[in-house]
Amino acid sequence: MTTDKLQRLKDLLGEVWDIHMAAAVLGWDQETYMPPAGAQARGQQLSTLGRIAHLKFTSEEIGRLLEDLAPEAADWDPDSDEARLVKVTRREYLKATKVPPDFVAESAKVASRAMMAWREAKAKADFSIFEPHLARIVELRQEYANFFAPYEHIYDPLLDDFEPGLKTADVQRIFNALRPQQVALVRAIAERPQVDDAFLHQPFDQQKQWEFGVEVITKFGFDWQRGRQDKSAHPFTTSFSVNDVRITTRIDPNYIGTGLFGTMHECGHALYELGVAPELERTPLGHGASLAIHESQSRLWENLVGRSRPFWEHFYPRLQETFPAQLGNIPRETFYKGINRVQPSLIRTEADEATYNLHIMLRLELEIALLEGTVAVKDLPEAWNAKMKEYLGVVPSDDAQGVLQDIHWSMGSIGYFSTYALGNLISAQWWECIQADIPNLNDQIRNGEFGDLLAWLREHIHRHGAKFEPQELVEKVTGRGIDPAPYMRYLYAKYGEIYALEQ
Amino acid sequence: MTTDKLQRLKDLLGEVWDIHMAAAVLGWDQETYMPPAGAQARGQQLSTLGRIAHLKFTSEEIGRLLEDLAPEAADWDPDSDEARLVKVTRREYLKATKVPPDFVAESAKVASRAMMAWREAKAKADFSIFEPHLARIVELRQEYANFFAPYEHIYDPLLDDFEPGLKTADVQRIFNALRPQQVALVRAIAERPQVDDAFLHQPFDQQKQWEFGVEVITKFGFDWQRGRQDKSAHPFTTSFSVNDVRITTRIDPNYIGTGLFGTMHECGHALYELGVAPELERTPLGHGASLAIHESQSRLWENLVGRSRPFWEHFYPRLQETFPAQLGNIPRETFYKGINRVQPSLIRTEADEATYNLHIMLRLELEIALLEGTVAVKDLPEAWNAKMKEYLGVVPSDDAQGVLQDIHWSMGSIGYFSTYALGNLISAQWWECIQADIPNLNDQIRNGEFGDLLAWLREHIHRHGAKFEPQELVEKVTGRGIDPAPYMRYLYAKYGEIYALEQ
Repeated sequence: MTTDKLQRLKDLLGEVWDIHMAAAVLGWDQETYMPPAGAQARGQQLSTLGRIAHLKFTSEEIGRLLEDLAPEAADWDPDSDEARLVKVTRREYLKATKVPPDFVAESAKVASRAMMAWREAKAKADFSIFEPHLARIVELRQEYANFFAPYEHIYDPLLDDFEPGLKTADVQRIFNALRPQQVALVRAIAERPQVDDAFLHQPFDQQKQWEFGVEVITKFGFDWQRGRQDKSAHPFTTSFSVNDVRITTRIDPNYIGTGLFGTMHECGHALYELGVAPELERTPLGHGASLAIHESQSRLWENLVGRSRPFWEHFYPRLQETFPAQLGNIPRETFYKGINRVQPSLIRTEADEATYNLHIMLRLELEIALLEGTVAVKDLPEAWNAKMKEYLGVVPSDDAQGVLQDIHWSMGSIGYFSTYALGNLISAQWWECIQADIPNLNDQIRNGEFGDLLAWLREHIHRHGAKFEPQELVEKVTGRGIDPAPYMRYLYAKYGEIYALEQ
Repeated sequence: MTTDKLQRLKDLLGEVWDIHMAAAVLGWDQETYMPPAGAQARGQQLSTLGRIAHLKFTSEEIGRLLEDLAPEAADWDPDSDEARLVKVTRREYLKATKVPPDFVAESAKVASRAMMAWREAKAKADFSIFEPHLARIVELRQEYANFFAPYEHIYDPLLDDFEPGLKTADVQRIFNALRPQQVALVRAIAERPQVDDAFLHQPFDQQKQWEFGVEVITKFGFDWQRGRQDKSAHPFTTSFSVNDVRITTRIDPNYIGTGLFGTMHECGHALYELGVAPELERTPLGHGASLAIHESQSRLWENLVGRSRPFWEHFYPRLQETFPAQLGNIPRETFYKGINRVQPSLIRTEADEATYNLHIMLRLELEIALLEGTVAVKDLPEAWNAKMKEYLGVVPSDDAQGVLQDIHWSMGSIGYFSTYALGNLISAQWWECIQADIPNLNDQIRNGEFGDLLAWLREHIHRHGAKFEPQELVEKVTGRGIDPAPYMRYLYAKYGEIYALEQ
């Protein structure tokens, strides 16, 4: 009886999953190959699939099955796939059914207009064009939060969409501990002689850049039978099944960093999705646990592996061979320092490891203030610039380089940004555990061997999919919750040496 | 009231359309870019979308709306979009609701196994592996036909799926008139000295082949803002909206004909879909009228344009420029004759214009005999070989080159083949009308101008979408039904000259 109900639940969830996967294929095509005129119909197709998936997921039958299964599930092993399936599905079901379909439709319409306004505002560096749209989005997000009242903090329900179970107070506590240390590090580096990275900025053949990236991620363990890479304006990873995970990359003909580190970053996301246990597929557990956990994977491969000295001990000769004219005379150590150069800058997506989190903290603080109503939308550019000055010591000359730089808010995504910084922190937490479990990891990397590393990630993180909430997973693996200390230890060790900082 | 009901019908049909379009994107990806391991999940996703679309289309609400609208629609202009929408939707609704979902599922399962068996049978040239599967498919097709009893002929309901309104007796009458003339033509050619086409079979750079094809179809009027071309093992055209039509091509590195004529062929299909009136989109009228009408477009661009003398008067210098080593010393006239060489052969897809239809007639006759039960599946190879001998004078040395060559039957598609030959006939019917309406067409083609031709096709054929049944459309445009005479006039004129036949 229970078995029947569980199977019926899985069948219904599988159908919803298939629709989401179909939508993912349409989204991938939209960003990679779709001809320009195809956009309007594609929007309609995605909206239809989204509506059908929502209606099917919020059906009374799924609600009833969850009700029926809940008491029995209480007796199951709480970490079993089945218990977690019921728990996570119930959580998502309750969230999905609390938001009226009309509200979802209105939000989509507002976001669609806001994105157009944002593009124009950014092109003209004129915040006033975007301002009324953002004001409406903030209102809608406040309204959204109130569907989930009571809450500790109005920002909690927004954060919860990206990081299940995480509270605003948790993130504030973590970031408050982190901020002074990050600011101090950046200031200390600023007082030291700067390293050179001019050699990274010169023409590099695009096809060779592509092929080098492919060579690297093939060694990482990217399985070309179960995935592929294409090009897109904004790199991303998407998954159509555990056996079909797609990444995209962007190659800059005049700067090698974009393609190289972008490819490793997306590969990190892809390896996560490729490592989810197949038996979790076609259920809400069949993908990564949260955006922060996902980012902990992409940043681990991009930074902890890809910007490390052992990595380049293996790959630099190959890179020099590939680009002899550009890098033949650049010593490995110079290259290593160049790719790790710290330079406070205006744009988040171009920020280095030492300054990146400061861009995020600024955004989180402003998002919270907007939601609380303590900063008005019209005062946002001023608040932005003041925080840039305080945290990074640089101030944008116009709003295109400042408050208008990111697309997220125009899409109605408020609550998303902190996941990037949390991902950085978590990646360093994994890294300390991995170093303890694989004592000769650096030697392996020096030999271009990544099998043990990937196996560790699969065993401890990937295979669980979304069974555990992010904080829970971090605790399960590292013995404590999300913690900024390992990341700061990592930054101080790395930059202390590169910039010869006093200890 | 009527307006409300019509709008509601359109909304429901639009939703079904969106799901079909999403499935088309998934199908396109499957044939172009999907990594091998993605196949299993893709099958499940397509099956889910297909089931949802079927359930939504056969919903009681659509049935009721059609019932309610029928009496009023009788008073509308019968050629109006609205009247045709109700008529065509009603027809498709009645067909869809007559077939039980269990039967559809069983057919899909049988076909999936049969395709695997067919692949093995073809690889081993052993019909006995495929025989029991084909026997089951024939049984299922007989059962399928019986859902639509009473009928004039058991083959009628099958044909009707591909050519709405066309009867087996119509096709038999057309083919009976055609067959002796085609056989006589082929025999007459066989008695004349053969033309040379060895120069077509040599290495041609693949990228240059691709670019030349792109140049040609750009001149045809293929709009790259509204479509694109990719590569696939079996070329096809698919449409995701009137503003997003995709074609694929296959390039043979050692034979220029495959890519060149394949690209023009698929472009012909694409121009049709790109020309459907936008107001018919998201309804059952928003695509081509039938497979035969579709084929009349692809064959028109491939053969009547692409294998014509005026066409090569324009393009041959460019082709020689592109491939000087291969074609620099081949006179245009030699090239023209080479691409029009007639040679009875074993494989349908490689057949020339003069012999192609004979391959089709053979298949139609065998399909009808299987459905009628006058030929048993086990006797099929023998029957095949006998007809090959009679019509084409050649006999396959094994069944891989004979009865096992096409995938269609293994997919459960019986009733499909005749549409290829009908398309040839219809293309020549259009051509005679076009020549009358655009007296200087040959001069235009000689100048590489295809605008008037495309405009004619749009005006008379494309924009109507599926408003008219194929026979009806042919009659509307040409003044008579499907008629083999223009095609035979075309073949005799062309080959009479190439092979210096006696008149």
